[in-house]
Amino acid sequence: MIRQDLRQLEVYTSGAGFTDLTAALNREIASSGLDTGIAVIACLHTSCSLTINENADPRVLADLEAFLRALVPEEGVKPVSGRGELRRWLHDDEGPDDMPAHIRTALTCSSLSQSFTGGRLLLGTWQAIYLWEHRSGRQKRQLSLHLIGA
Amino acid sequence: MIRQDLRQLEVYTSGAGFTDLTAALNREIASSGLDTGIAVIACLHTSCSLTINENADPRVLADLEAFLRALVPEEGVKPVSGRGELRRWLHDDEGPDDMPAHIRTALTCSSLSQSFTGGRLLLGTWQAIYLWEHRSGRQKRQLSLHLIGA
Amino acid sequence: MIRQDLRQLEVYTSGAGFTDLTAALNREIASSGLDTGIAVIACLHTSCSLTINENADPRVLADLEAFLRALVPEEGVKPVSGRGELRRWLHDDEGPDDMPAHIRTALTCSSLSQSFTGGRLLLGTWQAIYLWEHRSGRQKRQLSLHLIGA
Repeated sequence: MIRQDLRQLEVYTSGAGFTDLTAALNREIASSGLDTGIAVIACLHTSCSLTINENADPRVLADLEAFLRALVPEEGVKPVSGRGELRRWLHDDEGPDDMPAHIRTALTCSSLSQSFTGGRLLLGTWQAIYLWEHRSGRQKRQLSLHLIGA
Repeated sequence: MIRQDLRQLEVYTSGAGFTDLTAALNREIASSGLDTGIAVIACLHTSCSLTINENADPRVLADLEAFLRALVPEEGVKPVSGRGELRRWLHDDEGPDDMPAHIRTALTCSSLSQSFTGGRLLLGTWQAIYLWEHRSGRQKRQLSLHLIGA
Repeated sequence: MIRQDLRQLEVYTSGAGFTDLTAALNREIASSGLDTGIAVIACLHTSCSLTINENADPRVLADLEAFLRALVPEEGVKPVSGRGELRRWLHDDEGPDDMPAHIRTALTCSSLSQSFTGGRLLLGTWQAIYLWEHRSGRQKRQLSLHLIGA
């Protein structure tokens, strides 16, 4: 019989970067008593996101962060060609890191769907699920985890 | 008892930019009679996409649009370094805004999974779900909304 | 009665580019005996991804590949403005195509949720689901396909 289980998780972040959620998500799945199903993980914010990436070498995470930081700089929109004017962000009330954080969120994922089986997320050997914080300060982040299965 | 409900929505857009779908999606969920479940929203086109972003300050949307427009210009692929040749889009039969629209779609999301509970989408205070139109002209866009829950 | 069906697929790729998965996914759905439901397709790797894009003109795929290749070059992070130093990738043990592949994965999707009905994926006329390989060499790629429906 298929049933569902909707949970909430809280994560504290301290500056831009990655928090590995995989173990916490697996604990929630195990405690639901469900063996196999679909997990929908959603981030309830617009300046951090979810991503699946490499779980072994922390330099992968450093390179990911460096790339996204260069792609979406705090100064504003830079013409890709390097020619033309810088256009500063219009939305700057909450500091220079806020609008880049919204754009970095749009370029990654606010929610993820993954299978679980045997009471654990079905991930590849090298995959982890990360919360990707895009803001500079200390933040309390809320996630929903929705399990549907048997 | 878990059950499902598959619906279609139509949205008219007039040029690149954002249409807030949140209220329309909530009306569909309410009319389904389901209280809690998973909603899969899919865009049935390859030149517009779905995104979750800030619902309060319209300048956020203006900055998102300006960023993606600069990142994927109509002229073609520009080397990030600013050095080297411009490579024009090969696919240009449907106008200069078409190939950039396909790329902008690939960089955002064609479908989203979100929880709903209490007959409404489970979103953060500042989150809205937008259709992000990437083409210039007037368009009729079809979306599917699949609800599974109880 | 809602039920679920979890499957695995293998795909062989030979260099960066696209493999259309649509027909293979439809065959799996048909063989499950399910008519209508949600399909969660997940890629169990961190250097290839899933994307939905245009199914008609192969030049769209060539332009998508050219764009992402220019955006995430093998040399490292290039400042968007064209000014300033190149910062080489820290993670380079597995060759120059590996770290760009992780970033291209982060900018696209590791998993997709789509509806199916009539025993087939509910896609727009011009949509196909692709595995987007981001590495240079020959690879064996594993995907999971999770169907839940009736």
